[in-house]
Amino acid sequence: MTTSFNPPIRKLMGPGPSDVHPRVLGAMARPTIGHLDPEFSRMMEEIKDLLRYAFKTKNFLTIPVSGPGSVGMETCFVNLIEPGDKVIVCQNGAFGGRMKENVERCGGTPVMIFDDWGKPIDVKKVEDTLKNNSDSKALAFVHAETSTGVQSDAARICGLAKEYGVLSIVDAVTSLGGTPVLADDWNADAIYSGSQKCLSCMPGISPITISKRAADVIRSRNHKVQSWFMDLNLVMGYWSGEGSRAYHHTAPINSLYAIHEALVMLAEEGIEQAWERHAKMHRALRQGLEAMGLSLVVEKKYRLPQLNTVAIPEGVDESEVRAILLSRYNLEIGAGLGDLAGKVWRVGLMGQSSKEEHVTLFLSAMEDALLQQGAAIKTGVALPAARTVIQ
Amino acid sequence: MTTSFNPPIRKLMGPGPSDVHPRVLGAMARPTIGHLDPEFSRMMEEIKDLLRYAFKTKNFLTIPVSGPGSVGMETCFVNLIEPGDKVIVCQNGAFGGRMKENVERCGGTPVMIFDDWGKPIDVKKVEDTLKNNSDSKALAFVHAETSTGVQSDAARICGLAKEYGVLSIVDAVTSLGGTPVLADDWNADAIYSGSQKCLSCMPGISPITISKRAADVIRSRNHKVQSWFMDLNLVMGYWSGEGSRAYHHTAPINSLYAIHEALVMLAEEGIEQAWERHAKMHRALRQGLEAMGLSLVVEKKYRLPQLNTVAIPEGVDESEVRAILLSRYNLEIGAGLGDLAGKVWRVGLMGQSSKEEHVTLFLSAMEDALLQQGAAIKTGVALPAARTVIQ
Repeated sequence: MTTSFNPPIRKLMGPGPSDVHPRVLGAMARPTIGHLDPEFSRMMEEIKDLLRYAFKTKNFLTIPVSGPGSVGMETCFVNLIEPGDKVIVCQNGAFGGRMKENVERCGGTPVMIFDDWGKPIDVKKVEDTLKNNSDSKALAFVHAETSTGVQSDAARICGLAKEYGVLSIVDAVTSLGGTPVLADDWNADAIYSGSQKCLSCMPGISPITISKRAADVIRSRNHKVQSWFMDLNLVMGYWSGEGSRAYHHTAPINSLYAIHEALVMLAEEGIEQAWERHAKMHRALRQGLEAMGLSLVVEKKYRLPQLNTVAIPEGVDESEVRAILLSRYNLEIGAGLGDLAGKVWRVGLMGQSSKEEHVTLFLSAMEDALLQQGAAIKTGVALPAARTVIQ
Repeated sequence: MTTSFNPPIRKLMGPGPSDVHPRVLGAMARPTIGHLDPEFSRMMEEIKDLLRYAFKTKNFLTIPVSGPGSVGMETCFVNLIEPGDKVIVCQNGAFGGRMKENVERCGGTPVMIFDDWGKPIDVKKVEDTLKNNSDSKALAFVHAETSTGVQSDAARICGLAKEYGVLSIVDAVTSLGGTPVLADDWNADAIYSGSQKCLSCMPGISPITISKRAADVIRSRNHKVQSWFMDLNLVMGYWSGEGSRAYHHTAPINSLYAIHEALVMLAEEGIEQAWERHAKMHRALRQGLEAMGLSLVVEKKYRLPQLNTVAIPEGVDESEVRAILLSRYNLEIGAGLGDLAGKVWRVGLMGQSSKEEHVTLFLSAMEDALLQQGAAIKTGVALPAARTVIQ
């Protein structure tokens, strides 16, 4: 007979999930109460406020969607896009491609702007495309590409969208909590994220924030939203105000306990301090990697501190290295995706996984695994180099 | 500053969520690992087997969808229905209405069969409608209506669908684990359920099972599934086989630990024993209610043991009664929905909430609350009556 599952204890340094703090695990295990319980209702209001803090926004429509980041993405598209709408989509990695899929499945027409995997979105191309497609409904792009470790200039891209009267849709799955996501300063119209990256909550919840302008667009649609579950006009009947919650779907109670606790921890640390910690651990990792003779594939000024794409040295079996890290050190890192498959490892320093102990374990374990693979690396220098940053 | 949320300890006897066992809460709090971890992959296979046990099926396509029951529902509709398809929908409560919404949002045309709230689906009407609409793609109905406490004859309705060459889509959100759901015996094509009812897991996961015939229909669609997230052609790249998992979305790791544990507990008890326990606790509740002078609104042979709709006695403030139960006894029951709003309470005896201690607390607390409301009930007789059933 099948018995209880007891997972191994890993250090999670892939592209997400990241390590979940025992406080968050403990919060998730608190007794389940009803989704219409007045006490739960009170907690929902706190989550909305905490998310506004994380997104740096005053947007009323700021909620945790009941599903993984992909549901947050799809929620933004199905609510804002109607059949026949033209949508400019920037693609410089895997998740821009998923945005295109979403536009098409909403009956919209994507106008694509391509940049190479590992490069940021070219703002000049964005402006040119907006000029030639000012009849577009929206412009969608990925702020932090989890597939490549690249950060694009969200402030400028959202600013251009606003200038041309086009709604901006921003994927901040990997950035929220790790690098600045400034919904109001950017004038972004829709931003979605995930729970399991720099917020260090378990996967399954997708925070979103929607501007007043975008909320008005959703309210005055010509067609019903194609998804009943994701229709924000209905979802907001449940999330909009304390004391007047209309049942829509049964909220994932315990997952919401968990995201509440993760956001409380973020507020305790201070989001600016969290950004600084991510930046510092990234610098330490980079110093160590470079001392060892490894390199990051993304140009310095576009690197995401929380997601590092490390070039695989010549002659190394990349999957064997990952297997050594996992089986010997209980350390998970990620493989390359799409155009970068077989060329890079993805090393996450997200949320609770962005600490000196993670940098240290990773550099030490990687040195061992690469030596086992006969790679020509410098030994004994990575940790001292990393420590010069951390002090 | 916002602090950790500590929920009150409730007894959950509404329409779901039901009480979650500490074993399941504990499983959920185990350390998060990656969604591509080989150990996680092994557990996914166990979940599929355990779900096949719960659904009484050999269907290959049997998985826990990453979202609440509404996502399970929508997953069935968006995958099976294409624009222009005609779909017969039986409505005898709230959730049949949600099915209609789903059909319409998929671009399908619903052919409605209405029965009163509180009555089962009229099988004769189903047959007549099938005769006159044999060009329909599917027939959708609710096995266990959570809004009314009625169980319909799923075996006969699925049998008729098969006879007329129409796919059957079955809502078993409230029945799975509480009363027999026999996917293979019924020849059902798509069944979806929820984690938070008779499986007594926390909300957020929706088990589904899809017949081979329906899986073939999904594979040979003319249009892409309108939802990227719910597209089973993509989802199955992740769930289909151990060792060859393609990333689709990040699975809700800890929620899957929890459903695994809840299903292990179901298997330990034995599903037939679980059905018997639900039936017995229902009989005890009914004896107690009737002794007190209260009545169930559903005709005896269509009653769902796990969801009891109790008629509100004349002159009683129903919301005040619920408030007394919640504030004084930490006991949650549900209000009426739709046509039954203000006329009934919904009293759940689901999963871990289907025990003698729940029946006893409910009858005792209800007696107190009704006396406070000046209702003309018989006192001191409910518990002895209930005990004659339980022994």
